[in-house]
Amino acid sequence: MPNPTAAMLVIGDEILSGRTRDSNMHHLAGRLTEHGIDLREVRVVADDADAIEQAARALSEAFDHVFTSGGIGPTHDDITAECIARAKGVPIGVRDDARAILQAHYDRQGGTLNDARLRMARIPEGATLIDNPVSAAPGFSLGNIHVMAGVPQIFEAMVAGLLPTLTGGARVESRTIRVERGEGDIAEALGQVASDYPDLSVGSYPFVQKGRFGVNVVVRGSDVDRLEAAMGALKSHFPEAAE
Amino acid sequence: MPNPTAAMLVIGDEILSGRTRDSNMHHLAGRLTEHGIDLREVRVVADDADAIEQAARALSEAFDHVFTSGGIGPTHDDITAECIARAKGVPIGVRDDARAILQAHYDRQGGTLNDARLRMARIPEGATLIDNPVSAAPGFSLGNIHVMAGVPQIFEAMVAGLLPTLTGGARVESRTIRVERGEGDIAEALGQVASDYPDLSVGSYPFVQKGRFGVNVVVRGSDVDRLEAAMGALKSHFPEAAE
Repeated sequence: MPNPTAAMLVIGDEILSGRTRDSNMHHLAGRLTEHGIDLREVRVVADDADAIEQAARALSEAFDHVFTSGGIGPTHDDITAECIARAKGVPIGVRDDARAILQAHYDRQGGTLNDARLRMARIPEGATLIDNPVSAAPGFSLGNIHVMAGVPQIFEAMVAGLLPTLTGGARVESRTIRVERGEGDIAEALGQVASDYPDLSVGSYPFVQKGRFGVNVVVRGSDVDRLEAAMGALKSHFPEAAE
Repeated sequence: MPNPTAAMLVIGDEILSGRTRDSNMHHLAGRLTEHGIDLREVRVVADDADAIEQAARALSEAFDHVFTSGGIGPTHDDITAECIARAKGVPIGVRDDARAILQAHYDRQGGTLNDARLRMARIPEGATLIDNPVSAAPGFSLGNIHVMAGVPQIFEAMVAGLLPTLTGGARVESRTIRVERGEGDIAEALGQVASDYPDLSVGSYPFVQKGRFGVNVVVRGSDVDRLEAAMGALKSHFPEAAE
């Protein structure tokens, strides 16, 4: 059975303006690979209601899971929850369980659950809450869309809590060898290995380091014996390569 | 006149698998902001022909410019040029000017323009070449799609050559203040400033540092006087904030 598929939707003006370099994408990609869920697409859209709603709907229809990051805080530009509710065609309002979580948190912290913070208790109908061990305000799963915070510490904590509840597939393993030659010199041999091992993915990632060209060749697949056989074939082509 | 809009399409299994952390997105976002082109969306797709073609077509129809990164080298997994040609419905083949650039490069370097490398001279009909001062193999612009390499040094050099040829708009300036309070405590005042300055974008980017919550408030716009006025309003709300 093929692994479940996933997409990520990053809501973030600050990434599109170049102010912030995304880290949630890289984090989620690694965790999903470990969990046997294939991340097939990432979209980054602006804090724009139509853009969020349309992307959420398209990705939700195309993939088994959609993970979102950002836009669920208390400020005027936090519109993700409303947009996801609209994408799924369900109403949204303050929910008692989410309000109780926030109330308990601010009681402990000595803060006030004011109107702005109460917006973080707005949860679409039918959603399941995602625990936020950092700052209480929960994420939620609505159908196959998992809505999480953008602050990396909170996003990572939410992912850590959510993933064990999702069915994973076979873990995709990878092996890498580093060849200190131009990509054009090794392309023919790589193509041969790729066609001899159609069940594996053979990727070629060139780099420039200190003015010299080289290639990281990455082989991926879930059958470790096949991986090792492909690596053996690559090493016979490139005996000088480093693992 | 509103600024031109843009999207970026990153072709990269290695980013979706979590192996590599993208840097081209962050680089392009910064350069486009400086040039007055609004980056509205980024998509990262796998090295999959249908995914690349469909994303390229959708983004090309929705935005003034599409910038792609990755998949134009000499190996079997470099399929971007073919996919972009299909997305635009034009034929592709080895072009004499691209072949001459590669031949001159390998003559200089003492390498061979073998069949694999000759694939990098395949250019869709009607495209304009984008100069590659690092490793010769050119990118190209086909209509509003600008196709560039994925290796960061090459991508950045191509962007540096390409952007001056594209019409930019008003440069979007930004100002940031850092408020060491929870987002929920400042949300009401932020919302007020955002509604008083509808011509500006007021973004709120929370962070957790050493266990304490804070917010970077970023105001963006192309009218510097309005930006300074909004910053004055924010400072009167948050006199303790640091710029």
